[in-house]
Amino acid sequence: MCKACDYTIHGAQHHFGWDNSLAPAQRVEPGQTILFHCHDSSAGQLGPSSTVADVETLDFGKINPVSGPIWVEGAQPGDAIKVTLDSFAPRAQDGKGWGWTANIPGFGLLADQFTDPALHIWTYDPETMAPSLFGKEGRVPLKPFAGTIGNALAEPGLHSVVPPRRVGGNLDIRDLSAGTTLYLPVEVAGALFSVGDTHAAQGDGEVCGTAIESPMDVVLTLDLVKGANLKTPRFTTPGPVTRHLDHKGYEVTTGIGPDLMTASRDAVAGMVDHLCATRGMAAVDAYMLVSTCGDLRISEIVDMPNWIVSFYFPRCVFE
Amino acid sequence: MCKACDYTIHGAQHHFGWDNSLAPAQRVEPGQTILFHCHDSSAGQLGPSSTVADVETLDFGKINPVSGPIWVEGAQPGDAIKVTLDSFAPRAQDGKGWGWTANIPGFGLLADQFTDPALHIWTYDPETMAPSLFGKEGRVPLKPFAGTIGNALAEPGLHSVVPPRRVGGNLDIRDLSAGTTLYLPVEVAGALFSVGDTHAAQGDGEVCGTAIESPMDVVLTLDLVKGANLKTPRFTTPGPVTRHLDHKGYEVTTGIGPDLMTASRDAVAGMVDHLCATRGMAAVDAYMLVSTCGDLRISEIVDMPNWIVSFYFPRCVFE
Repeated sequence: MCKACDYTIHGAQHHFGWDNSLAPAQRVEPGQTILFHCHDSSAGQLGPSSTVADVETLDFGKINPVSGPIWVEGAQPGDAIKVTLDSFAPRAQDGKGWGWTANIPGFGLLADQFTDPALHIWTYDPETMAPSLFGKEGRVPLKPFAGTIGNALAEPGLHSVVPPRRVGGNLDIRDLSAGTTLYLPVEVAGALFSVGDTHAAQGDGEVCGTAIESPMDVVLTLDLVKGANLKTPRFTTPGPVTRHLDHKGYEVTTGIGPDLMTASRDAVAGMVDHLCATRGMAAVDAYMLVSTCGDLRISEIVDMPNWIVSFYFPRCVFE
Repeated sequence: MCKACDYTIHGAQHHFGWDNSLAPAQRVEPGQTILFHCHDSSAGQLGPSSTVADVETLDFGKINPVSGPIWVEGAQPGDAIKVTLDSFAPRAQDGKGWGWTANIPGFGLLADQFTDPALHIWTYDPETMAPSLFGKEGRVPLKPFAGTIGNALAEPGLHSVVPPRRVGGNLDIRDLSAGTTLYLPVEVAGALFSVGDTHAAQGDGEVCGTAIESPMDVVLTLDLVKGANLKTPRFTTPGPVTRHLDHKGYEVTTGIGPDLMTASRDAVAGMVDHLCATRGMAAVDAYMLVSTCGDLRISEIVDMPNWIVSFYFPRCVFE
């Protein structure tokens, strides 16, 4: 229900992958507001009562459905779509918000170290969005957003939804939350905008490969910026982006060396070790937990030949 | 002046580069507190009245002096030094705090794009530490810290101060500010701790290669953690780390692709372009400005094969 919405895109109006030959689910004028009923990134293959066995049998042909595409009247290559993100409302089941985080073998920053499937099911209050429990002591602050949001590519054919590209897509940028304004390059007439992969919370990096994956209702407004000639997405946030989790400070591990990827892996592995040692957690649980709330930052990228990537874990989760 | 300090390390007690054969400037017991009179990273070659011509004649043999080394009694390889960062007090000249930010040819994330030397001199109130002006409209919030802090390496000989290593060194981690507790691996008897390269402000990345480089008095306490077996530095912050600059939100540009370094460069270059277009700034000024306050974050590092690095510029600088 969205009183101010011009259109509703229902759950059935989704697609897998990007293809600029797809028929629009809706044509809209610039300035119109749309409600999207977004699936979770498993397209309903996982639910509140799923077990790790369900991770093993996931059909990867049905991963990351996106709702749309939306044809924006007047949009032409070289323009940008301005997306005003209005609201994210988790779709409750039996009155509860829910989500899943999985370690999917072969996927994730430390895939070589975590080869077995794992699954954590979260529940939370969809009205208060109070922090969601992890085990007996963990509490992860929530901040919902859309992991996948983008336009169709100029190149014809079907393109995997997994990698993000210059027109957006599977960006997994934690701060694309309510209030943020996102600008996406347009490469085809009408732009063919789609959105999905809603997350209740994620850290910068999404290090285990999944966040708190939750189906949500998304309301957003699409505007058109003619001749923007934007190379990649950019966005503006209306205020602070980490205050939901920063009030007790951070535990921080570092990775140091000439390769940013190796440094990132070292920093995250160091935090997993640190949580195992100080909290008695199983390593895979720590890995999934930090994916939902820990942040990868590049502390320095100029002191040749060694760069530093730091991984920030918010202390409020356990304090 | 430090009433609670056990020792003072004076300006003359500094060294260039790391060398575990250096005689200690002081031997201390674990738990003792030390005041360091730290030089700026030019070792006084630049001052409040310097011009760009002085950047061209910098003697790189006298870059990044560090104060020390401090022998910590009982420290042995495999231990960690726990550093409690107590305070940073800019050393005023004529009643003013000051600092410099330079584009040094051949150094910095976009060195290929910014080949000419440039210099910006900052002034600020060393008591209030109110934001420092940049041009007529910019105001950069200050948060002083030590850019270089570490122990001596096990390997004999003189090692350049420029790259950070597993024992610390030129970490340039913005959040090593007052209140933070830092743990550094020990590789030689006594640890041989040194500190310097004080900055009045820096963004995550230090993208142009320099921050607001300011001489400061640093007070810190050194403790010993036996048998820590730490691989790389880690630290704990007592509270939020970005609240000095996040209250108006951020402008954010992105870099997308299979290489984190290229993505980082694209994100920063995108922000330089954005500030030039929206603020009418010279590109090199935008580049130096964002080095002091913009943050590089890894938004996602799992959506194969394309990762996203985002560059966050705090809107409070211009709003």
